Amino acid sequence: MGDTSRFAVAEDDTRAAIMRATYDALTSHGYANLTIQRIADEFEKSKSLLYHHYDGKDDLLVDFLRFMLEHWEAKAECREDQDPRTRLEGLLDRVAAVDLDEETAAFTAAMEELRGQAPHDAAYREQFTEHDRALRERFATIVETGIDDGVFHEADPERVAEFLLTTVNGIRIQRVTRDDTGGVAAARAELDEYLATRLYRGEA
Amino acid sequence: MGDTSRFAVAEDDTRAAIMRATYDALTSHGYANLTIQRIADEFEKSKSLLYHHYDGKDDLLVDFLRFMLEHWEAKAECREDQDPRTRLEGLLDRVAAVDLDEETAAFTAAMEELRGQAPHDAAYREQFTEHDRALRERFATIVETGIDDGVFHEADPERVAEFLLTTVNGIRIQRVTRDDTGGVAAARAELDEYLATRLYRGEA
Repeated sequence: MGDTSRFAVAEDDTRAAIMRATYDALTSHGYANLTIQRIADEFEKSKSLLYHHYDGKDDLLVDFLRFMLEHWEAKAECREDQDPRTRLEGLLDRVAAVDLDEETAAFTAAMEELRGQAPHDAAYREQFTEHDRALRERFATIVETGIDDGVFHEADPERVAEFLLTTVNGIRIQRVTRDDTGGVAAARAELDEYLATRLYRGEA
Repeated sequence: MGDTSRFAVAEDDTRAAIMRATYDALTSHGYANLTIQRIADEFEKSKSLLYHHYDGKDDLLVDFLRFMLEHWEAKAECREDQDPRTRLEGLLDRVAAVDLDEETAAFTAAMEELRGQAPHDAAYREQFTEHDRALRERFATIVETGIDDGVFHEADPERVAEFLLTTVNGIRIQRVTRDDTGGVAAARAELDEYLATRLYRGEA
């Protein structure tokens, strides 16, 4: 959920244009310093459209989270020709990369600030529940395929998927809330060790 | 970092009394709805003392995080007579319990809201960097002891510790930002599986 190509899908669509402006404003200002005016500043169409569609900053951001998830789910998993291990490692690289470019790092920090609203805001909590479900399901599908194909050891795919999701969410929050690198490289290296012994046949 | 006995250590001390009031206000109101007045409402001594010591809500909360860490570090690890596995599992039960009582759950949610300030606030970020360091060091010490005692397999204690910390932080953030149970039981079960194969000799 880190690349921006999703916004190209329907650039002429008003909602997509608002979402693009929201992405840009979040990346530039973060959540705490975000105002609906700053989103409007990034919006090329009539600003009244934006005020017409949303009650305020949080209403808009919750729809932004919904939009991100829709596009994540719509993107076909085009990698079914790849073996399960390559798919799993590719997915981990997309959702918990060791190195992030500046824009992705800024956006990632803003997403964790949004997640920080979820403890006291049910609308945010609903969105992050769904974001987590979507990623967990994708992990579970790959693990299940690997077991069915006989390349992964027997395991409970749901439980492994929840654990992988937990490590990804740990990596994401640590990365943007610590002065050091958040331990991402060490955590990913140990995660690979776990996968090698827990899942991959013919390893260890 | 979940029990409240720490506040009893120096109850007559002004700072400890302010910290106790902050804990109570955070547990009752969370971060988003917290005001310095609400902390003052929980404070039995002169409210002017509180305003005298702190510039505002965030200044006070950053000192609260510092106070929490000082007490966590001061609490002697009185369990050196226990075997490393028991110590490790005991520590995980304290920092990432499957079930939380209502007060601890409310406090945990507030702590994650505070962590959500760290992406845009350097003072919070410094505190969470130190909180993570303290927990990582405690994990690393136990893992190192287990290896030295010959009861754990060879492993890089620092890397294992960072991975354990990452799963703990994943559990903590998921628990309070999802409508379901945050997958805590499943993640902990798979974490136990990891520990059994990765560390514990004579398992699997």
